[in-house]
Amino acid sequence: MAARAGVVVTGTEVLSGIITDKNGPWLSERLRERGVDCAQITVVGDRPSDMRAALEALAALGVDLIVTSGGLGPTADDLTATVVGEFCGRAMELDPALEQRIWAILQGLVARWPDLDQDAVRAANRKQAIVPVGATVLEPVGTAPGLVVPPLVAGAGPTVLVLPGPPRELQPMWVTALETPALQSAVSGAVELRQEFIRMFGIPESELAGSLRGMEETGVPVGSLEVTTCLRRGEIEIATVFPPSAASDYEAFVAAVRARHGDVLFSEDRSTIDEIVARLLISSGSSVAVAESCTGGLMTGRLTDLAGSSAYVLGGVTAYSDPAKSALAGVPASLISEFGAVSMEVARALADGARSVFGASVGVGITGVAGPGGGTEDKPVGTVCFSVTGPSGRIDRRIQLPGDRLSVRDRSTTVAMHLIRRVLLGENRPAGPTPGG
Amino acid sequence: MAARAGVVVTGTEVLSGIITDKNGPWLSERLRERGVDCAQITVVGDRPSDMRAALEALAALGVDLIVTSGGLGPTADDLTATVVGEFCGRAMELDPALEQRIWAILQGLVARWPDLDQDAVRAANRKQAIVPVGATVLEPVGTAPGLVVPPLVAGAGPTVLVLPGPPRELQPMWVTALETPALQSAVSGAVELRQEFIRMFGIPESELAGSLRGMEETGVPVGSLEVTTCLRRGEIEIATVFPPSAASDYEAFVAAVRARHGDVLFSEDRSTIDEIVARLLISSGSSVAVAESCTGGLMTGRLTDLAGSSAYVLGGVTAYSDPAKSALAGVPASLISEFGAVSMEVARALADGARSVFGASVGVGITGVAGPGGGTEDKPVGTVCFSVTGPSGRIDRRIQLPGDRLSVRDRSTTVAMHLIRRVLLGENRPAGPTPGG
Repeated sequence: MAARAGVVVTGTEVLSGIITDKNGPWLSERLRERGVDCAQITVVGDRPSDMRAALEALAALGVDLIVTSGGLGPTADDLTATVVGEFCGRAMELDPALEQRIWAILQGLVARWPDLDQDAVRAANRKQAIVPVGATVLEPVGTAPGLVVPPLVAGAGPTVLVLPGPPRELQPMWVTALETPALQSAVSGAVELRQEFIRMFGIPESELAGSLRGMEETGVPVGSLEVTTCLRRGEIEIATVFPPSAASDYEAFVAAVRARHGDVLFSEDRSTIDEIVARLLISSGSSVAVAESCTGGLMTGRLTDLAGSSAYVLGGVTAYSDPAKSALAGVPASLISEFGAVSMEVARALADGARSVFGASVGVGITGVAGPGGGTEDKPVGTVCFSVTGPSGRIDRRIQLPGDRLSVRDRSTTVAMHLIRRVLLGENRPAGPTPGG
Repeated sequence: MAARAGVVVTGTEVLSGIITDKNGPWLSERLRERGVDCAQITVVGDRPSDMRAALEALAALGVDLIVTSGGLGPTADDLTATVVGEFCGRAMELDPALEQRIWAILQGLVARWPDLDQDAVRAANRKQAIVPVGATVLEPVGTAPGLVVPPLVAGAGPTVLVLPGPPRELQPMWVTALETPALQSAVSGAVELRQEFIRMFGIPESELAGSLRGMEETGVPVGSLEVTTCLRRGEIEIATVFPPSAASDYEAFVAAVRARHGDVLFSEDRSTIDEIVARLLISSGSSVAVAESCTGGLMTGRLTDLAGSSAYVLGGVTAYSDPAKSALAGVPASLISEFGAVSMEVARALADGARSVFGASVGVGITGVAGPGGGTEDKPVGTVCFSVTGPSGRIDRRIQLPGDRLSVRDRSTTVAMHLIRRVLLGENRPAGPTPGG
């Protein structure tokens, strides 16, 4: 990559962990897609000296662009514009037209609080219209304008893109900034890159890693691709970044992955399992209902996460107690006493119960030991039994999931999502391989 | 604060946003509690030159301590120990006893994969036993040892604490590191600080901010306290950091907050609303059941998040369709047709249904418009009706929640948690103030 950048995230709440930073990684990904290599993300508090030091350190790395987030508000501790102006060697100046435009935005907001001291608001926000001379102003999405500030002497240092902290303001403003000549000239050496995702379920990461290592030897052209794998909620995601010129290499790579691991590959187009299941339910005119125990409502909660899910989710029952399993999901008490509440027999009865109680085309049953208590030698913590039943048949699975209570509950919903997909695709293999943790 | 530190988080997956960094903020908070000011968190990829530059930049800031996370694995791109050794001016040396101890750990792991090439594993992991001369070795929690590496010449630069990336390894090793003379001497100027939390629900952040600003004028000794407020899932959290000598100032501050906002203050001892509700349910011998619509299972999911919740959660019904509301929670169809599915009448019927169907002492009913579709002029997106009924009576609320679908669903569970608390405390005020968004 010909252009390099760094990100500086400001905010004492971010530095102290009270707020989790989302801007640094988001900007890093956007930069990478534009062919700009992000060398570093620096998080600093609201002290001007620390912020200045972070800018100097990135300049010393030789980056072409620094993107800052935060510190553009109306209060005294919001000092990013001034620090960046000084860093770029530029004087600060009031932009009266900008001041008017910010004031117009604020009038709409302050109208909601008639008791507010409007003069104080105006004085505080005048500050937001004081910008470095020669900077390109990016119009406010909230009330704070962004800035593209080139170095005073061209080539003498990085250009700084100053963005507001709230992601809902930062993200649209990033798109606007890309259109400005000042930013384009700062990253003119960059080649726009593509990023694509493959998602898999039911394969250990170590097996996939071995398979990827072997690819180059068998002639798959992976040299032009930057391939990263990571585990996400029990699935494996392969993220690949490449220049447009390597598009055919990527196709060959995907074909090789498909040939080796087609049975566990479920997404090549960025779709998540949740979206795939939703589309399959809609396209087949199916509905779904859940009877769950150890997941305690989270499975139904996940199915209803997507907007429009009321079109195909009829509902769910969380049967946390044994009597509730019988009363609400029709699980015979004799099954529970014979096989135990955590058993394939009860999972099947839960799935059948969900389907018949709600009149759904697909029924999901989940029962397991989320822990930390309740494990036995036969059924240790992490043992979860799943059954998904639909018009084309049924899939049952007993799985041993790793991790703590939170993780067992969350991964259980991932397993169930994949079983719903298989039932909807008609892949009812009663004795298939166990999806891995 | 007399001691300053910086944190360097390594890992290309973290830098590119594929994995969210939890270590930086966690370490920053732990440092602050120990009286060490964290100046900066730097996230870098797995390039040695970028990591070295990050260390140099922190040294230039004059920090006493640098904490690194990650890059201690067995593969070639795990280079933290070498880079830190060079940075501190120390040669690298194999520690044969450490190599044996790591090997003993690995043997337990590799036994699970009999096909693995054990020699290759041993060679790769030998690398993990090569450490800077003069460093203090921290025993592995996983397979990677940590290090405390002082500068070659005392006082000539920062001490570096090298920790592994996985939080489950990093966190216990941090505790171990605190016991080492090498680390203690690096931060010897620090005064251990206390951090306390107050949590509130049902007050706008702006009102609390005004109240906090007015405290100093009325003689509340806040000068020695570092007070931060933030919104979390619809609640306000006040985090306060102070030296032990200011403990009585903190008590006076809490008393002042209690006097002004006692009606909305629910926690002074770090307890979350989830823990408070769980304790109240257990101590009163009560049980709870839910009938929910817009929250789609998340309310029951939240009640069952805590270990041991099967002692008091009987279960829940997600009645996403109107027929399910009648069939599973006994909501009369006439109520739905007369008042609409999102109405106080249906919320009350859901709460009554949950209580009677599960035989619970407390019943929770939630129905609302999570969006983005389904809003009307009378019931815009974000309208949620709640009813909680128990032995001592009932509380009903109709609330307009801000934000998107995800946020409306999540905040609804927070509102319901607080209503359960009030019912369990016997605070059944049918026309109380509406808890704020």
